[in-house]
Amino acid sequence: MKKYISLDVGGSNINYALYDDKGKKLYNSKKKTKAVKGKDFVINRIFEIIEELIDEGKKSVEGICISIPGIIEDNSKVLFCPNIPFYNINLKKIIEEEFKLPTFIENDVNAAMWGEWKNTSKHYNNGIGLFVGTGVGGALIVNDKLYSGKGGAGEIGHMNVVKDGIMCGCGLKGCLESYVSKSGMMKIIELEAKKEDKSLLYEYLKDDGSVIKSSSIYKAYEKKDKLARNLVYRGAEYLGNAIGTLTNIFNPDVFILGGGVIESLGEHMIDDIVYHAKESAMFSLRSDIKVVFTKLGDDAGIKGGYYLIKEYLGDKDA
Amino acid sequence: MKKYISLDVGGSNINYALYDDKGKKLYNSKKKTKAVKGKDFVINRIFEIIEELIDEGKKSVEGICISIPGIIEDNSKVLFCPNIPFYNINLKKIIEEEFKLPTFIENDVNAAMWGEWKNTSKHYNNGIGLFVGTGVGGALIVNDKLYSGKGGAGEIGHMNVVKDGIMCGCGLKGCLESYVSKSGMMKIIELEAKKEDKSLLYEYLKDDGSVIKSSSIYKAYEKKDKLARNLVYRGAEYLGNAIGTLTNIFNPDVFILGGGVIESLGEHMIDDIVYHAKESAMFSLRSDIKVVFTKLGDDAGIKGGYYLIKEYLGDKDA
Repeated sequence: MKKYISLDVGGSNINYALYDDKGKKLYNSKKKTKAVKGKDFVINRIFEIIEELIDEGKKSVEGICISIPGIIEDNSKVLFCPNIPFYNINLKKIIEEEFKLPTFIENDVNAAMWGEWKNTSKHYNNGIGLFVGTGVGGALIVNDKLYSGKGGAGEIGHMNVVKDGIMCGCGLKGCLESYVSKSGMMKIIELEAKKEDKSLLYEYLKDDGSVIKSSSIYKAYEKKDKLARNLVYRGAEYLGNAIGTLTNIFNPDVFILGGGVIESLGEHMIDDIVYHAKESAMFSLRSDIKVVFTKLGDDAGIKGGYYLIKEYLGDKDA
Repeated sequence: MKKYISLDVGGSNINYALYDDKGKKLYNSKKKTKAVKGKDFVINRIFEIIEELIDEGKKSVEGICISIPGIIEDNSKVLFCPNIPFYNINLKKIIEEEFKLPTFIENDVNAAMWGEWKNTSKHYNNGIGLFVGTGVGGALIVNDKLYSGKGGAGEIGHMNVVKDGIMCGCGLKGCLESYVSKSGMMKIIELEAKKEDKSLLYEYLKDDGSVIKSSSIYKAYEKKDKLARNLVYRGAEYLGNAIGTLTNIFNPDVFILGGGVIESLGEHMIDDIVYHAKESAMFSLRSDIKVVFTKLGDDAGIKGGYYLIKEYLGDKDA
């Protein structure tokens, strides 16, 4: 039986799994990335994990997919990766030389979108994925294939939703990410904390610089905290605006929403999201906007990686 | 020798031509559309034109392409067309039954984009066309093919550039079209005319409700008219903002700009357009934004139609 290795390397954790050729997960575990320890440490950690999975697979492994939260060129090179010290390295070549197994490198949001797409949406042609967590990741599917443009396309978190709006971490002003992501919301909470109004959210902010948890925003929202409610309403409005504008440009079959903020708050946001999407779309396109939630949670990336390496190898039943 | 018929049906004129199989224009003429006379009149006019072209082609015509400024389904039906009284008609069927020749219906902006694309950009994979005239038409090319999404995609003129901005003719607020198109600029001129400031543009406005000419805006701009200068600067800024945001989402190989406003003022706008595009794009994507002008002028639509019908028929050398 053919087996496939898939690693989803995040800034904090590496989620990894071994799949059989029917897509069944034979083995799954997690390890800390420990990105602060540097490039060589992370590469060695990836080596250890692959060895562990090859042992689990009793050597009948066909190929490896590694997804990385960075800009990837030709499914080989990691050009830039904000949270992992990979800069301009040919990760595919490094892995293939070590293990003599075909290897495929993909952006993490693309891999997760591909996992969701193959899992839920086989009958669609075109889709847009929006993953709202610490930031906002975006992915585009065109004609049933991941679309990357000249490379690095899908930065939907950095589409402008407010001209000359809030300064985003990326250096631009008024990006979608500044209003709906956890890091964007946290900035707004910090600004509001300087004013006199009380909010539960001030208590939930840690001093260690880590981003506020989606579950904390949810808790405050549930307790009818005014600031939390405003953040959630506004987040839904701007996310809806973006979906409406993307409908005018792209008119895809479906929008797929995921990430921590959506997992915690999606059910409370969806009506507003759809309302504002319709308000921002042209009349002739309004009635037909489809917005769904992701279903695979943390497994989206590794499952997407499984499909990607299988397709790369030309293996059927993918 | 194989010959092909191409009609570009506009709200005011029909531009039509006969091409040989090398793309050489054997015959070309124009007729008024006279859309106010109703559906049957326009269809009969199309019939007359096709008969004229079949006669010119001495009957060796392989197929017909008709481009229409409306929403097209399956390259057959005209669902809706604001300036021509076609509503939910199967134009392909009507033409094929009359002439027994394979017929292909396409949106006019798509056809023009395809003409420009085939004419200038064979080495690109992905591109976005923006045609700035009375309105703003948009067209997307993905993997060297016109992209329509679920139908009617490419309404880039109606992407939001200013949250809660100027009311657009489409019913939305803050659309790109409201700031850069002739109809958008005219609305701003009319609003400004109510204030005291003088502008040459007030003189160039006709009372007959027709849209101001690009050449009038150009004349006033050249004479350093303050309002004209502001319109052109702001148009370039917002067009640049849109191109920057589209780069973040799509990162296409090239943006192709055309239409009356660009033909009259493009040379004066291009530096500002590119400046603001870079300002609105993510740092990693900025250095590589390519913006070019269309080259075919009025012939883009008929030339695109020639390629489309030839490709539809599977004829080589298209």
